[in-house]
Amino acid sequence: MSLDATLARIDANLPAALDRLTALLRIPSISTDPAYADKCQQAADWLVQDLQSLGIAAETRATPGHPMVVGHVEGDGPHVLFYGHYDVQPVDPLNLWDRDPFDPAIEETPKGRVIRGRGSSDDKGQLMTFVEACRAWKAEHGSMPCRITFFFEGEEESGSPSLIPFLKENKEELKADIALICDTGLFESRVPAIMTQLRGLLGEQITLTGPDKDLHSGMYGGVARNPIRVLSRILANLHDDNGHIQVPHFYDGVPELSDEMKAQWEALNFDHGTFLGDVGLSKPAGEQDRSALEMIWSRPTAEINGIIGGYTGDGFKTVLPSKASAKVSFRLVGQQDPHALREHFREWVRAQLPEDVSVEFHGHGASPASQMQTTHPAFESARSVLGAEWGHEAAFTGCGGSIPVAGYFKSILDMDTMLVGWGKDDDQIHSPNEKYDVESFHKGIRSWARILDAIR
Amino acid sequence: MSLDATLARIDANLPAALDRLTALLRIPSISTDPAYADKCQQAADWLVQDLQSLGIAAETRATPGHPMVVGHVEGDGPHVLFYGHYDVQPVDPLNLWDRDPFDPAIEETPKGRVIRGRGSSDDKGQLMTFVEACRAWKAEHGSMPCRITFFFEGEEESGSPSLIPFLKENKEELKADIALICDTGLFESRVPAIMTQLRGLLGEQITLTGPDKDLHSGMYGGVARNPIRVLSRILANLHDDNGHIQVPHFYDGVPELSDEMKAQWEALNFDHGTFLGDVGLSKPAGEQDRSALEMIWSRPTAEINGIIGGYTGDGFKTVLPSKASAKVSFRLVGQQDPHALREHFREWVRAQLPEDVSVEFHGHGASPASQMQTTHPAFESARSVLGAEWGHEAAFTGCGGSIPVAGYFKSILDMDTMLVGWGKDDDQIHSPNEKYDVESFHKGIRSWARILDAIR
Repeated sequence: MSLDATLARIDANLPAALDRLTALLRIPSISTDPAYADKCQQAADWLVQDLQSLGIAAETRATPGHPMVVGHVEGDGPHVLFYGHYDVQPVDPLNLWDRDPFDPAIEETPKGRVIRGRGSSDDKGQLMTFVEACRAWKAEHGSMPCRITFFFEGEEESGSPSLIPFLKENKEELKADIALICDTGLFESRVPAIMTQLRGLLGEQITLTGPDKDLHSGMYGGVARNPIRVLSRILANLHDDNGHIQVPHFYDGVPELSDEMKAQWEALNFDHGTFLGDVGLSKPAGEQDRSALEMIWSRPTAEINGIIGGYTGDGFKTVLPSKASAKVSFRLVGQQDPHALREHFREWVRAQLPEDVSVEFHGHGASPASQMQTTHPAFESARSVLGAEWGHEAAFTGCGGSIPVAGYFKSILDMDTMLVGWGKDDDQIHSPNEKYDVESFHKGIRSWARILDAIR
Repeated sequence: MSLDATLARIDANLPAALDRLTALLRIPSISTDPAYADKCQQAADWLVQDLQSLGIAAETRATPGHPMVVGHVEGDGPHVLFYGHYDVQPVDPLNLWDRDPFDPAIEETPKGRVIRGRGSSDDKGQLMTFVEACRAWKAEHGSMPCRITFFFEGEEESGSPSLIPFLKENKEELKADIALICDTGLFESRVPAIMTQLRGLLGEQITLTGPDKDLHSGMYGGVARNPIRVLSRILANLHDDNGHIQVPHFYDGVPELSDEMKAQWEALNFDHGTFLGDVGLSKPAGEQDRSALEMIWSRPTAEINGIIGGYTGDGFKTVLPSKASAKVSFRLVGQQDPHALREHFREWVRAQLPEDVSVEFHGHGASPASQMQTTHPAFESARSVLGAEWGHEAAFTGCGGSIPVAGYFKSILDMDTMLVGWGKDDDQIHSPNEKYDVESFHKGIRSWARILDAIR
């Protein structure tokens, strides 16, 4: 049977597939740092060439930011759009990496072979599982399983500023029967997972200014307003002692979990001790009246992602700084409105400013949460074949992360999305020493072949 | 009369004196950053050569840190020790400087000519006013006015780690009848000031660790402990809403101002509106039940001098950081014990740590406040002649800054200190675009000639 032949070919060609992934990982396509713009272009060009080598009509499309990659394969049966992103997170703190983040390597570890390097799991490795599945299918069948549109973005890690306009300008071209996204993970690194809900994301940068220049704390200390002190008080007020977020109207549109979903999640027996233990923690630190799984999947959050002010170098400097700044992000659920929340948050900050302190805000992306259409037939097809590949029935799960594109596919293209992925909890995405298990890569490619076979 | 001749010589040689200062300012002797160690040595060597050119037996003395400069002039009359420091503050944020901080220049400004560059006011320019006064005196008289020991330090801006051991090891050599220090300023940029009290300084660096690695706030946000959030809450608790410091026992040993001193200070008619207005502020931000002058001169403070955690680069990164760190300093008065306070502060921080968060402390210097011995005859002599130079009677004032060496001279060498200086409020010491008025430099040199003439 041809699926078996395709799977056998995937097994045989794994080394070559790993070489291709390694080549892509060598390109430092950090989208958030303007200094790497040419590297993002380089990664996009690499993908276009690879798709063209499969006989796919692919090209880069310029945007005001980093280019999109779009490729089309005509064919019978359903029309699927596959989305992935070729940009990666910054790599600092670089000193915590055990090797150059952009000099990837296959490493033997006690848990098995891994591909080490920035982007190996988020998202270049995952993106390539789909491409490699198509490569094997084409080689085996001489054609693709169905009509496929490939759509790769280069700004996912920097708020996707060009995505919405691009989708609006190319509605007809990009609309398919369903979108497939490979940017998520397995449940507890073992159970194949199909995401049924994604949190939204709102990013805000606050910069407070007190004195109009840095001052000597000997001359001015005690009498001049210190913006770090003001910023600390504001950030300290973000949560109450029980972890509830105190921005007015923050919880507007936050739904309670359905009893059915609650029951499903409880059946997963999530082990938060292990989940937190893996990163040196023990106690869930969120809303104290919620379960750990709710904190991660179905509850909104407010996190301080960065803060800086005054002298932060070696030694000590008794400066009283002019400015202090923080980056704050909110994970959103249900019907929370990111744009309304941005205004509520800014009002809340302004209301806490003492005399002589001014604030500047800089917004960083605003995407609502999204709910998947699990009644779409692709979900049942995928669930059944994933069980066969992984030896464990696939679970419908939530996701703490934010993949705004799924929401935009629905709102702009009226297209449903199915999210499956092969990442593991310990992949250390967005952190030093990011890795992707060779098993995830290998079984991921096989899984896509099975899914394409089932839905074609 | 020979004083007039000396003053005339000072006037005539001002351009040459400015050239010498400029040469010293070109040496980037940043003591707090190990990368500049050789530059500190270079500044010390420069001073030794300059003193030797005056026939002074001077040399550098090695320490575990940056070298001391010691030089002796034998002579009759009282034995004075002159102290200054040749090290300077770091220069960041560099982008706020209008010129290279170490490419000094004389600039014409609406307020008169200034010497622009790091260290021009703190303390190289002030140090050189004394050296230039000695140079003119020697040229005019063929000898120095009295027995003088020159003592220059290179670690004043980095907590003076080598000072105490050096003073203990060289007691006999350094003990004089009185120490003169030129590291302070005029009162409101007009009135010559003799400091009668100095605040002490205690520096602490706190580093909190939550997760053992940086995490993705999508996967862990809401459930994992965020050390920036914990640090913000601790720093927010440093002061209550009225600006009182909440560390237990903090106010132990804080005296009330004597009625006499209070009356003297009120007579100064300190204009806090102008003082704060010069730096873009309007309202005294310290203890709300104290006057602005008390906040600066006689009340203890707690200031956050720096904070950093998570992603602080361009753009946005939804990281949940492993670590967050802050530098906090306390200005001390009266009998506050810096070592006891360090422990009280650390206990207070530890008591606020939630589960899964650990703390590391790094101490940065601890010096008590000091009271000057205004009954020493040098104070009256200086007060009288300073009036003649500046056209305004000198004031006995307090000082918000900390000059620990004065305390060590008393406790280790049993030597009183007199602090006079020519800095102005708008010198922007410790800030970008530091400057020193040519008038301060010129009249400062003349003032030292007058003081030496009066006390010899």
